[in-house]
Amino acid sequence: MCRWAAWRGAPLFLEDILVKPAHSLIAQSNGAKHTVNQTHGDGFGVAWYGERPEPGLYRDVLPAWSDRNLKSLAGQIRSPLFLAHVRASTHGATARENCHPFVNGRWSFMHNGHVAEFSRLERRLESHLSNMLYQRREGATDSELLFLLAVQMGLSRDPAGALSAVVALVAEEAAVIGVATTIRLTCAFSDGRTLFGVRYASEGEAPSLFVGESVDGITLASEPFEQPGCEWRPVPPMSFVTADERGTAIRRFDPLAQRFAMTA
Amino acid sequence: MCRWAAWRGAPLFLEDILVKPAHSLIAQSNGAKHTVNQTHGDGFGVAWYGERPEPGLYRDVLPAWSDRNLKSLAGQIRSPLFLAHVRASTHGATARENCHPFVNGRWSFMHNGHVAEFSRLERRLESHLSNMLYQRREGATDSELLFLLAVQMGLSRDPAGALSAVVALVAEEAAVIGVATTIRLTCAFSDGRTLFGVRYASEGEAPSLFVGESVDGITLASEPFEQPGCEWRPVPPMSFVTADERGTAIRRFDPLAQRFAMTA
Amino acid sequence: MCRWAAWRGAPLFLEDILVKPAHSLIAQSNGAKHTVNQTHGDGFGVAWYGERPEPGLYRDVLPAWSDRNLKSLAGQIRSPLFLAHVRASTHGATARENCHPFVNGRWSFMHNGHVAEFSRLERRLESHLSNMLYQRREGATDSELLFLLAVQMGLSRDPAGALSAVVALVAEEAAVIGVATTIRLTCAFSDGRTLFGVRYASEGEAPSLFVGESVDGITLASEPFEQPGCEWRPVPPMSFVTADERGTAIRRFDPLAQRFAMTA
Amino acid sequence: MCRWAAWRGAPLFLEDILVKPAHSLIAQSNGAKHTVNQTHGDGFGVAWYGERPEPGLYRDVLPAWSDRNLKSLAGQIRSPLFLAHVRASTHGATARENCHPFVNGRWSFMHNGHVAEFSRLERRLESHLSNMLYQRREGATDSELLFLLAVQMGLSRDPAGALSAVVALVAEEAAVIGVATTIRLTCAFSDGRTLFGVRYASEGEAPSLFVGESVDGITLASEPFEQPGCEWRPVPPMSFVTADERGTAIRRFDPLAQRFAMTA
Repeated sequence: MCRWAAWRGAPLFLEDILVKPAHSLIAQSNGAKHTVNQTHGDGFGVAWYGERPEPGLYRDVLPAWSDRNLKSLAGQIRSPLFLAHVRASTHGATARENCHPFVNGRWSFMHNGHVAEFSRLERRLESHLSNMLYQRREGATDSELLFLLAVQMGLSRDPAGALSAVVALVAEEAAVIGVATTIRLTCAFSDGRTLFGVRYASEGEAPSLFVGESVDGITLASEPFEQPGCEWRPVPPMSFVTADERGTAIRRFDPLAQRFAMTA
Repeated sequence: MCRWAAWRGAPLFLEDILVKPAHSLIAQSNGAKHTVNQTHGDGFGVAWYGERPEPGLYRDVLPAWSDRNLKSLAGQIRSPLFLAHVRASTHGATARENCHPFVNGRWSFMHNGHVAEFSRLERRLESHLSNMLYQRREGATDSELLFLLAVQMGLSRDPAGALSAVVALVAEEAAVIGVATTIRLTCAFSDGRTLFGVRYASEGEAPSLFVGESVDGITLASEPFEQPGCEWRPVPPMSFVTADERGTAIRRFDPLAQRFAMTA
Repeated sequence: MCRWAAWRGAPLFLEDILVKPAHSLIAQSNGAKHTVNQTHGDGFGVAWYGERPEPGLYRDVLPAWSDRNLKSLAGQIRSPLFLAHVRASTHGATARENCHPFVNGRWSFMHNGHVAEFSRLERRLESHLSNMLYQRREGATDSELLFLLAVQMGLSRDPAGALSAVVALVAEEAAVIGVATTIRLTCAFSDGRTLFGVRYASEGEAPSLFVGESVDGITLASEPFEQPGCEWRPVPPMSFVTADERGTAIRRFDPLAQRFAMTA
Repeated sequence: MCRWAAWRGAPLFLEDILVKPAHSLIAQSNGAKHTVNQTHGDGFGVAWYGERPEPGLYRDVLPAWSDRNLKSLAGQIRSPLFLAHVRASTHGATARENCHPFVNGRWSFMHNGHVAEFSRLERRLESHLSNMLYQRREGATDSELLFLLAVQMGLSRDPAGALSAVVALVAEEAAVIGVATTIRLTCAFSDGRTLFGVRYASEGEAPSLFVGESVDGITLASEPFEQPGCEWRPVPPMSFVTADERGTAIRRFDPLAQRFAMTA
């Protein structure tokens, strides 16, 4: 189980979320509360939007708490929209290519959760990628593959629809080969303008997700941390979150229910 | 173009090939002669056979010349059969997963050369892997995929036949989609008992390969280095080399000629 | 607070202590019991004695639990005497040069504990090194400096005397500049023949130390782990442990008490 | 011999010097022209001034040409004043702490050259640091020590005077212990407002230094690269360069001549 936090609002130094707050993301990397695994030392990453449409990306394999480059960058880079992640690995070695966020064109994506029985499903899922997106896959994680599938399925046109389609695809492929899978998907992603979030599990408990609102902007995070003037509330399971200049909208996200409803 | 060296014979400290000789493999990593690219700073690796059937594997992303761990290990580990490689990348990022040698069960493999138009062929080639071998692929190199295809095609039963089949497969898949590829394949591989080598190019010049023989054993290498009592000679293009306790045998390796002959 | 384990006896694969046992050293790196800090992700190292008088040394900055090189090496290297360490940093960045063990000639050394107010004492302590040993200092830890001071003060002639002299020196220098220091020193060191250990604190509780004895050899460790036929017992504070072919000898180690006694 | 480049002027993306130009700094890292050593693969670093008085710092041990983080950062970070360096090591291991630039408060510093017989002089030179600056030394290079000595000797009040004093100090300490040293010092440093450079050798040839001037600003570099509208000229040996909003001023820098003149 990983930990992550994302910001959309007035330009903020990365350190205002990663370093300075009590229970900041880096503090969480060495002592998380809302998960059984307290240590997130298998690499980290941050994607931020600046002057260009494509985000910057800094990922490395050291624990976030001990990387001095990250501390320096977090004190220099100020951005109105960024995603930051500390990893506790489930699939894939500790390698930069397996660290979140993942980036494709303008889009960035990070994930907490996993697809059960992924090793039996990976190949069938990968076959749905176009040749171009297949070539873009650099690591071995389920998360990166889910992201590329979402790109494939229209992330830029219809973000919620694309994520729904990915969940449905995983369920269908699992059904085809008779694998009992569970999809746990608490993720954040962005095109540089809007920040999106999902809290979902196909069964059992969905990994935690909190939204924090202040006059300066909106935070999505695995768990709350100290932020002046910020009101935190938990996002209910089966939710799709949209954060833009109008504020936060949360609507129901339950792709398999919809599918069964449609096929009924 | 990478540089590599392999040893089979009396147990030798790794440093006797990697560090100590004039123009040793580590020296070559920062000043090779038989290639246009003199610098091989994109990682390195060594696989060696010891007390167990499976080889040990040490790979890292630093240039070989600056890794102190490598120097210490090379002075402690003594082995009758080992493969060592310094990388100048063509496909794939500088990551441990993309460093040679690659290991699967008892087999180790390393490669100098490349498959032209690999990005257009990769997916079709990968589809020939069993699910199990597909899961074993960790990096993004053409080399690792060629190795896993060789495992798939019977490397343990018939090494020369398996390598031939891989070359033929690449040519066939390229023909199917109308891609003009060239396969350059100068590689070494072993099951822990016999050391095999290939020097091959489907057209143009095959990357260099030399065999060195002494009373203590046999060296295969991209380029010769100073080794007491060792007689070096170039291996001709289109060769398959077998080195075991009876010495070195070199026979013709020209899979596409054979294929055309057989189909004539 | 770090965790470490050392072995002297019949040649053992490193993995028999680092990887395989329940609560092995690598398992401790992500969940220690006998310390407030459960996570030891700031690098690791192992020094082992093989065919040469000088030990091999492998250190890196990743958490021990995620380094694949370490796992492979631990399954290949078999040694009658080795020291292994996982780090939770107090002084010095996460860098290979700050990872234990430290090596000087035939001697290796690793440490759990620290010198309070080290930054005020470091320079005065360093001034006691010979020019040659000063040049050998590569990192910024108190541990490496304590080791080099012990070398300076006759480690090879009289190990217990040299460690005593180091503790006395720290206390004296602290007294000279009026700094209230505390020395916590639970360490292991070896010349390749005998394994030595110390459990000491100038005040308060000394970091834990356990000795495990079996027919095959002797283990010294920060905390016990599952080892067949091994009898574990805690080493009392203020102890100097000598493990050689005759077994384990524990004697009192209280350098400041002795000093005061002598001056009385 | 290292390679470096520094910019002062209109805000520029780092990639406009590090990546995009023909013979850019990253291209130089794998094929320099004005030095015998063509490969600079022993780490790299960049210090840049942004919204804060203290510069940001990003250093790592990979060759610059293969670090994806560097490429991404160079495309996102835009700065009116930055220093970038690729290393070919002379003193000190390949470690982040030994990579240039070095930073202290508002000041950044990077260096090409070296102090001959440094290992015999290091300790005497280090003794001139205040306790505070002694604690700030993190690596083992002559370069970092020269920088900290310059800070000690009044860098912020009188940059040229401080550098002169450092050169004189090295010469004096060498004379005291009868060591024949040579000081080669081609360096750049800044307080975030003015960019300074030195090209100096106490004897023999000083490492190369070029200044490039365009309407947008001033570049100092080990060797020229393609930059639109930029006029490059070599800086003569024994020079101190000051680049600020008024342009480039070059004056004679020959500390030992001055010293002998003064003592005559």
